[in-house]
Amino acid sequence: MADKEKMTLIMFSGEMDKVLAAFNIAIGGASSGMDVTMFFTFWGLNVIKKNEGSIKSKGIMRNMLNYMNRGGAKRLPLSKFHMAGAGKAMMQRLMKDINFPQVDELMRIAKELGVKFIACTTTMGMMGITKDAFITEVDSFAGVATYIAVARESKINLFI
Amino acid sequence: MADKEKMTLIMFSGEMDKVLAAFNIAIGGASSGMDVTMFFTFWGLNVIKKNEGSIKSKGIMRNMLNYMNRGGAKRLPLSKFHMAGAGKAMMQRLMKDINFPQVDELMRIAKELGVKFIACTTTMGMMGITKDAFITEVDSFAGVATYIAVARESKINLFI
Amino acid sequence: MADKEKMTLIMFSGEMDKVLAAFNIAIGGASSGMDVTMFFTFWGLNVIKKNEGSIKSKGIMRNMLNYMNRGGAKRLPLSKFHMAGAGKAMMQRLMKDINFPQVDELMRIAKELGVKFIACTTTMGMMGITKDAFITEVDSFAGVATYIAVARESKINLFI
Repeated sequence: MADKEKMTLIMFSGEMDKVLAAFNIAIGGASSGMDVTMFFTFWGLNVIKKNEGSIKSKGIMRNMLNYMNRGGAKRLPLSKFHMAGAGKAMMQRLMKDINFPQVDELMRIAKELGVKFIACTTTMGMMGITKDAFITEVDSFAGVATYIAVARESKINLFI
Repeated sequence: MADKEKMTLIMFSGEMDKVLAAFNIAIGGASSGMDVTMFFTFWGLNVIKKNEGSIKSKGIMRNMLNYMNRGGAKRLPLSKFHMAGAGKAMMQRLMKDINFPQVDELMRIAKELGVKFIACTTTMGMMGITKDAFITEVDSFAGVATYIAVARESKINLFI
Repeated sequence: MADKEKMTLIMFSGEMDKVLAAFNIAIGGASSGMDVTMFFTFWGLNVIKKNEGSIKSKGIMRNMLNYMNRGGAKRLPLSKFHMAGAGKAMMQRLMKDINFPQVDELMRIAKELGVKFIACTTTMGMMGITKDAFITEVDSFAGVATYIAVARESKINLFI
């Protein structure tokens, strides 16, 4: 039996709008019969962190970094609105009003369709984040060599 | 006759610098004999909206969203300069002085070379934007399944 | 002998976090036996400019643009921290504390592994930057047609 065609997305950004786009593309690919891998790195790691954030980091500077990068799909900022200078409270009202899909709901659908989540160990090492900081939906922890191996076999590669 | 090789660009950003880059790549691809599709989504929809913006949206919050996302190739912000803290007036002077190519001119060339424009119906639904808000150069309105179908056959896929 | 598989990265952003990600991916690809090309354009040109910046630009507005885009791998901003509203001094302390890899070190490794650096002549013309503004590690100066020719033969294409 032929292998399924592959799609590999690098989720670099932790901004809500890009995260929504990434999950929509991942779900679209999986729904179309593709084998989809999402590789979470840098700010993208925030998407798959538990709500409480990492508790194992060492030192005050790393703690501050962790505070600024508290995990949880409900905490992601929305870059564009920030730029427009509008207040966050108004934005949250707006998001609710227009029935913007929630990241955690899209993440659940993606997992049901078999989308694989990989957390980047290079970023984890750099930021002092340990494995227990992440949600259980993460399939594996790996570095760039693993990314390259999957991406070079993929029909669709995107950096988001 | 063999099909032409394909290129598919997701135009996610509505920032002028990224839009310029995307059109340059699209024009380069079409000039090199590729079959190019641009899939406009999220803030990228602003690029292909009419100058007057959408008039069919419902509710005050959606109107506010539409105001912040007024369409028209001449209204796109330039993210980098914003970050540098410089005033917009100085920036416009600078852009003119260095003869920065205009987005609407690049868009016209892209269309002449046969680049296809698709507007993302998912974002349209989310933001309450109707088809009449867009310029006539838009070839079709479609969702992520259409994107996946074209992208998996493409030699070059980029998320911009 | 079969050609090596190719990877082509467009380095559009000049932000340190994205530049780090790009070099990590480039090094990962080259280490895995791929033939990697990095195409530097727009703000990405800052990464491969000499520290002193361009000295040949004409006119006060171009000089201002050059000032805002002073080159040098040590000068790149970090977009995310800017957004979080934290001061730059604290950020530099933080970066040092967590032993963030330096861009210039990664660039050196990339060159040792044979990664090719191309500077985008379109952006150079637009911004009035001349060839002598760049570090000697740049392999060639070329436009979008060259990018398309390499990218359409590549297994992995990313816009960063």
